[in-house]
Amino acid sequence: MKTKILVANRGEIAIRLIRAIQELNYEAVAVYETPDKESRHIRIADEAVWLGDGPRCDYLDIAKIITVAKKTGAVAIHPGYGFLAENPDFAKACENNDIIFIGPSSTVITNLGNKVIARQIMADAGIPMVPGSDNLAHGDEGVEAALAFGEKYKYPIMLKATCGGGGRGIRRIENAAQMKEEIPIARSEAKAAFNDDRVYLEKVVIEPKHVEVQIMADKDGKTVHLGTRDCSIQRRNQKLIEIAPSMIDNKELLDTICDTAVKAAKAANYFNAGTVEFLIDKDFNYYFMEINTRVQVEHTVTEMITGIDIVRTQIKLALGKPLSFSQDDIQMRGYAIEMRINAEDPKADFMPEGGKTVSVYRSPGGYGVRLDGFVYQGFTIPEVYDSLLVKMTVHGFSWNETVDRLRRCLKNFVISGPKTTIPFYLNITAEPDFLAGNFDTSYLDKHPELFSYDDNVDEANKLANLIAEIHKKGHNPYAA
Amino acid sequence: MKTKILVANRGEIAIRLIRAIQELNYEAVAVYETPDKESRHIRIADEAVWLGDGPRCDYLDIAKIITVAKKTGAVAIHPGYGFLAENPDFAKACENNDIIFIGPSSTVITNLGNKVIARQIMADAGIPMVPGSDNLAHGDEGVEAALAFGEKYKYPIMLKATCGGGGRGIRRIENAAQMKEEIPIARSEAKAAFNDDRVYLEKVVIEPKHVEVQIMADKDGKTVHLGTRDCSIQRRNQKLIEIAPSMIDNKELLDTICDTAVKAAKAANYFNAGTVEFLIDKDFNYYFMEINTRVQVEHTVTEMITGIDIVRTQIKLALGKPLSFSQDDIQMRGYAIEMRINAEDPKADFMPEGGKTVSVYRSPGGYGVRLDGFVYQGFTIPEVYDSLLVKMTVHGFSWNETVDRLRRCLKNFVISGPKTTIPFYLNITAEPDFLAGNFDTSYLDKHPELFSYDDNVDEANKLANLIAEIHKKGHNPYAA
Repeated sequence: MKTKILVANRGEIAIRLIRAIQELNYEAVAVYETPDKESRHIRIADEAVWLGDGPRCDYLDIAKIITVAKKTGAVAIHPGYGFLAENPDFAKACENNDIIFIGPSSTVITNLGNKVIARQIMADAGIPMVPGSDNLAHGDEGVEAALAFGEKYKYPIMLKATCGGGGRGIRRIENAAQMKEEIPIARSEAKAAFNDDRVYLEKVVIEPKHVEVQIMADKDGKTVHLGTRDCSIQRRNQKLIEIAPSMIDNKELLDTICDTAVKAAKAANYFNAGTVEFLIDKDFNYYFMEINTRVQVEHTVTEMITGIDIVRTQIKLALGKPLSFSQDDIQMRGYAIEMRINAEDPKADFMPEGGKTVSVYRSPGGYGVRLDGFVYQGFTIPEVYDSLLVKMTVHGFSWNETVDRLRRCLKNFVISGPKTTIPFYLNITAEPDFLAGNFDTSYLDKHPELFSYDDNVDEANKLANLIAEIHKKGHNPYAA
Repeated sequence: MKTKILVANRGEIAIRLIRAIQELNYEAVAVYETPDKESRHIRIADEAVWLGDGPRCDYLDIAKIITVAKKTGAVAIHPGYGFLAENPDFAKACENNDIIFIGPSSTVITNLGNKVIARQIMADAGIPMVPGSDNLAHGDEGVEAALAFGEKYKYPIMLKATCGGGGRGIRRIENAAQMKEEIPIARSEAKAAFNDDRVYLEKVVIEPKHVEVQIMADKDGKTVHLGTRDCSIQRRNQKLIEIAPSMIDNKELLDTICDTAVKAAKAANYFNAGTVEFLIDKDFNYYFMEINTRVQVEHTVTEMITGIDIVRTQIKLALGKPLSFSQDDIQMRGYAIEMRINAEDPKADFMPEGGKTVSVYRSPGGYGVRLDGFVYQGFTIPEVYDSLLVKMTVHGFSWNETVDRLRRCLKNFVISGPKTTIPFYLNITAEPDFLAGNFDTSYLDKHPELFSYDDNVDEANKLANLIAEIHKKGHNPYAA
């Protein structure tokens, strides 16, 4: 009987994981909530188990998922990203039930998920960090400490949920009055979102670049990095476009950051794949932000430049195999760019377009193009989940070739039905700052012109233009 | 006004070329015959011109295509493969009309297209060749020379059309009686197919591997190779599966072949992209076969392992740019395998399935997967052209990873409507000789079991099995 691995996720990442499991000649067990019953991850899995009506509660139900794993005989669970991926209770439940959790131990997830503990570990290891506070005490004592911190490091200051992550639970404070006002609000929001009301402060790095390093470690502690990714182009702290490697023209800095990431991973006793996130300011100072203890959405760009299959490696490491390559074996080739093609209307503040049906779906392909998606022609996008339809990752020998390829692919990608981020991205591929690699986290704020485009440049529209042209010029103006 | 380049081809290669042209920020002019009026290459081109009702005559009409190029203002023509790609008259017509032909000069095409002249050039350069004859004289004199050749080199002997190529115009002669009988037949067939009745002889290399080397040369004569491809797995001399690099476990031999290919290209004053084909016997003797003066169907595997975009490079070279990389810059990474997914029934001697409509089309994707296709859901395959629907090329760090990925992709590829080569290929991915790299041109003959598979393993069938299972076991046997 083949080894079974359960995939505790949905959408494109479920498909990504199932593919890797099947390529290893294991069997993939999918799970799903009712709104996902037409989802392609169910069809390509070797087995699929319905969890409940959802939405979003069954994918988060640790007990249900452990039960399904045991009943199906799955020896391991891959959590993907989001949902239970960074929940230490889930990792612990796997450990307690002799199921392999594909990721680091529950202890590591607990430590790194608590931003204050994580900062302490990194400080002890001598990793440079943005100046920050301990958890703020409750009541007046905490407020006073916060005001003193503001006085010392100058506003703006970030007020962050201790158990936040992935861009959530963060607010920017501009002055002392706002600080007083927002601490209780931040606490109650943190309580609601993360079931933990602790908050702390961090100095704001002005218009930084967000650069992260992919790391991998085996059970013997052998730890390597797979180079950098630039994820600066974000909306509301959510990444939209990711690039590997970072285009910062300072090899020494990037080498230092990569070495620091390995040091940080070792300090945390890290195992499996992880991402060490840094902020880099205009003077090339770099600051540790956090370690994400999951596979990232944007792992694809690293795979394209290194040729290393990160998910395949994650599974092999979790099953006890050592890393089969060392740092010297890892070579970078060219550039890769990922664009998250979301069913959203960028002009309406990226309002999700869930509930609509994809009436035409024709994806680009050819050299240097990778698609990680889950929708198909005729698929109705569930309204209750995130709006990511497909990640398009392109690779090229040079930056210019990569951007040229990206532009071609965006032009040829036909998704009719929902509005998508495609025309917005198409504008980015012609924007001079982007072309020159001049972008940081303020990029979208500085380029409102990116939101100007014709909404209806789809196949039907092109066809209408063609018919109009035929009427005007006759059927075949150039006929030989 | 943007530079325009005309694409004198159809199907997947037309799309491949249009993509490269658009990535270079030029405009692509497509041409088409009536049976291709729904073809996607027309839609994605910047401009499309109808040539005539066809079939297959307008794509071969040099005067028409030159006229369209002039009327649309195209400065260059890319011929792709097949049709006019290796027709020296077409290259000459471009030269005479000040249109850049993307390929070598008409003189080089003439010399290398004539197998006897080509052999002479290679013999002068000291390139090892299968022992062969000059063109056979007409009448008794030629027959006598052929019988003497058979006496000297022993049967079987290949009787080949001097102007043949691409596997066509070749017959295997087993004895003197057959030789006498078949020379006139071969002549009249060669006359019909290539408008040239000359034939010659070659000793047969028993169960050889077919290994070829991709070369590229600029106008200054700088010539590099992009490594080897193994194209041994063929049916009736037509390639089905191609692999880069060759799996022959003899690095010295492969290095020698690559160097020989560069030497051969230089001897022929070669310019632009080309392929030098060799046969390798069981004792690691290698013999020059021919130089193909076009981009090959299987160029994709070389692109995947080298990271070099061959078509982009072809266009840049043709427009007068020098090679931007030298031999030392070219690095190979892992393995790539291309499978030609044809609308054919392998069980019926690969009978084409043209005329059928693709009712469902769901392609695989993700890491290491490249698709070069032109069909889409709802597309009716024209009956009058070749049966290639899509080339699936997969890449992996190791041979095993690459084959594992190929198997996964074949399993998840859904094409309903026509029969395809997918289930046949799926058998190959589990066949021990293939897995071990033990294959030569006799592979399919030695493995009749590859033709045993269930014809209906498509989505509808899987769904029917699922429904049957639900009836038997209830809706959700593992529900938590």
